[in-house]
Amino acid sequence: MLQIHVDPSRPVALVEQIVSGVRSQIDDRILRPGMKLPPIRRLAETQQVSRFTVVEAYDRLVALGYLDSRRGSGFYVSARRAGGEEPEMIERVERAVDGAWLMREITNHAPERVLAAAGDLPPQWLDEDEVLRNLRQLLRRGDTRSTSYGTPQGYAPLRDQLRIRLAELGIRAQPGQIVLTYGATQALDLVGRYFLKAGDCVLVDDPGYWNLFSNLRLQGVRLLGVPRNADGPDTAALEQLLEHHQPRLYFTQSVLHNPTSSCISPAVAFRLLQLAEKHDFLIADDDIYGDMVQGPATRLATLDQLQRVIHIGSYSKTISGNLRVGYLACRYDLAQALTDVKIMTALSSPEFAERMVHLMLTEGHYRKYVERLHGRLARATDRTLQLLERVGMVVDQTPAGGQFVWARVPGLGDSSALAHHGVEHGIVLAPGAVFRPNCQPSAHLRFNVAYAEHPRLERFLGETLPRMVEPRACVANPPGSQSVTG
Amino acid sequence: MLQIHVDPSRPVALVEQIVSGVRSQIDDRILRPGMKLPPIRRLAETQQVSRFTVVEAYDRLVALGYLDSRRGSGFYVSARRAGGEEPEMIERVERAVDGAWLMREITNHAPERVLAAAGDLPPQWLDEDEVLRNLRQLLRRGDTRSTSYGTPQGYAPLRDQLRIRLAELGIRAQPGQIVLTYGATQALDLVGRYFLKAGDCVLVDDPGYWNLFSNLRLQGVRLLGVPRNADGPDTAALEQLLEHHQPRLYFTQSVLHNPTSSCISPAVAFRLLQLAEKHDFLIADDDIYGDMVQGPATRLATLDQLQRVIHIGSYSKTISGNLRVGYLACRYDLAQALTDVKIMTALSSPEFAERMVHLMLTEGHYRKYVERLHGRLARATDRTLQLLERVGMVVDQTPAGGQFVWARVPGLGDSSALAHHGVEHGIVLAPGAVFRPNCQPSAHLRFNVAYAEHPRLERFLGETLPRMVEPRACVANPPGSQSVTG
Repeated sequence: MLQIHVDPSRPVALVEQIVSGVRSQIDDRILRPGMKLPPIRRLAETQQVSRFTVVEAYDRLVALGYLDSRRGSGFYVSARRAGGEEPEMIERVERAVDGAWLMREITNHAPERVLAAAGDLPPQWLDEDEVLRNLRQLLRRGDTRSTSYGTPQGYAPLRDQLRIRLAELGIRAQPGQIVLTYGATQALDLVGRYFLKAGDCVLVDDPGYWNLFSNLRLQGVRLLGVPRNADGPDTAALEQLLEHHQPRLYFTQSVLHNPTSSCISPAVAFRLLQLAEKHDFLIADDDIYGDMVQGPATRLATLDQLQRVIHIGSYSKTISGNLRVGYLACRYDLAQALTDVKIMTALSSPEFAERMVHLMLTEGHYRKYVERLHGRLARATDRTLQLLERVGMVVDQTPAGGQFVWARVPGLGDSSALAHHGVEHGIVLAPGAVFRPNCQPSAHLRFNVAYAEHPRLERFLGETLPRMVEPRACVANPPGSQSVTG
Repeated sequence: MLQIHVDPSRPVALVEQIVSGVRSQIDDRILRPGMKLPPIRRLAETQQVSRFTVVEAYDRLVALGYLDSRRGSGFYVSARRAGGEEPEMIERVERAVDGAWLMREITNHAPERVLAAAGDLPPQWLDEDEVLRNLRQLLRRGDTRSTSYGTPQGYAPLRDQLRIRLAELGIRAQPGQIVLTYGATQALDLVGRYFLKAGDCVLVDDPGYWNLFSNLRLQGVRLLGVPRNADGPDTAALEQLLEHHQPRLYFTQSVLHNPTSSCISPAVAFRLLQLAEKHDFLIADDDIYGDMVQGPATRLATLDQLQRVIHIGSYSKTISGNLRVGYLACRYDLAQALTDVKIMTALSSPEFAERMVHLMLTEGHYRKYVERLHGRLARATDRTLQLLERVGMVVDQTPAGGQFVWARVPGLGDSSALAHHGVEHGIVLAPGAVFRPNCQPSAHLRFNVAYAEHPRLERFLGETLPRMVEPRACVANPPGSQSVTG
């Protein structure tokens, strides 16, 4: 008979408590091979945890070789355990607070969790009805080609549609200059793989997009952080970096920069392009939040017409993160070379998803939906700013739009321990260190305004922040942690 | 007035003939800015070419800045041409016969082309009705989550379904050991990115999967080709390589090896695993054609139980190349690490496609469809073998099943010029050199049996082969080209 006691007040994840409880009873032979474990629903009820927690714990125990899953019957103590890998596997459970940690936490959709760290909008904010309606329409057509490989560069009618949309931003790009990608992530990956090799250095925003940093580190590339101001990159600091380094590329985000939600000014954009010319580097400008900005905004490619700028976009944020349709626009010769890299690394485009996005853009109500979204985001941002003020957090730059608020905790050296603590309470926070090129400490947190209006979030922050900034709690921070711009 | 003359007997691609014809008339100011070009349909009719050819030519001319496309109206001579990039762009049109060339040719579905080089089955061979039926069913369900990001490791119910299918092959893998990927291509890419760095050497099959080679070369990895025999890798040659090199990985294909359609024998599989143990390397076994084999076949993972083997599979070949759902199964700790790499490079899984494949496997008629496919492939293979015999080609190994026949032209040093020549006649052939690790010459061609039964293919080979093996034609081959195993 399984006897465990899950205690939410302990500083150990609930899943981990179940895993180690079951493990020790099997090791101690209290639970014997062949014995059946309690059904998921029952264990969840008796331990007052969610069923997702039990599922995850059982799944992990199966992977560890402690349990067998018998289809339609349940979970049983395994007769033989898997090879000698358990110690390493258990150690991996306690993850450092980094990009991979953040991704795993924000994609764990257990219902009781508050996903203030999320990078996307909740389904009910997106036009899910319209997505489903267009999917059905696509299926009614005779030419969906649902089984064939797509073309290497991507579905031509969507590239032509993007040509029109880019022209509206003042960017002249022919369909041959546009490559469809598996989200903006693949676009960034292709650019990095084509231009960079291990040991190279590259310019990035500080703070900036965490997953890009992980990607570049995976490639063995050294990251040079350019501090981000309210009007764009700090060009004076950039000039100083360029005195000592010859980077080939700068990955930046001009419009609704993640995580600060600031936009570049025309003057800074001009200065940045001057420096790119003088020091001979290219700029990959990730415009993934471009459709969330209200009113005019400056894109680098509008000035330079894709000579030195690779303009990247995506419909993962405004249509569907599941369809994964992004693109890049650049010089024609470069577009052909990047298509070759795309073939080598992903073979072809998911044409079905590309046709779907094409339909949404041409026959859907995309523009009207985006207008409604602007209003909704603005209202949620206001309420989030009020909430953060009530709990004593400080927002130095009011967001220019979009879905993020970047706020800091006065007196806190680094917010990573706070985020780690939050997960134990079902509050998923995005700590500032994750958004810094080399995971430097940061007093900031990034809030997704669509998820931030939750009484449990306010209660957690209201109760925890005063304790975190007490001297006692500061011991848990990394050595040398200070309040920094990040 | 546009005056060009397209001549299919000239050794220049039809698209290129139109592009250069229009170009020179614009350069010579015979066509003036603002003039309208003939509609696509009309030009196609007057020049006796397909409309796709004209579309591609116009698209390229637009990209070159010679034409403007006005929506709903047509193509016009541009008032101003784009920057000074044309020479480079024109040069790129004449591509070397390599992997990128092959991919572009086989994804050009202009109707008159015979795609004997194709890597996938034609839509009418796949169960497109069933794919569409299941997509509709998926849309009727309330829980499709069509807009959210998927989970990092992939849709859990599909991973559980794969656990069951792998168990049928005698491979014990828990869902935590399985990572869903964007086709087998992403699985291979993740493994390479995790284990290899520029300058490393890696073992591959010779001949083997062309796109894997491009991918590894992109990573700066040195390829060591292991000759492929009818019963699997040549382990004696492998041992010799291992005397001088310490590769970390061997990428191979045990079942229905591409391009030879041979399967590994149990004895060779055992010997290979012995060598992996002794020389401490891992093996990535690409089982993408596994469902096309009839009867028992040996998988490396069935023997070694995923200790040194990373087992890779995909439903791109049997369900849909468009959905792009593949997977890898390996040690638990490695599965977690590869999931992290997946996040860094592609962010998340396309859960909609994963749910779709799950539905096909659990509620569709997948097994029955696969059985029908076996018979259909066997009959087409027989007829292809007969066709190749009639035109004087030689097949050294009768295929063990699947969709490919690997045949050579006696007396020919290298088949690349033949493939290049074929494209001019709308016959797309896959030359052996593309399947060799370092593009070494090869007298072989790979035929897709589902596309090979075409009178124009037989006529082309029958007429061209005798001419290609004459001494005069041999001059066009690379220096040092001889008939080799590849």
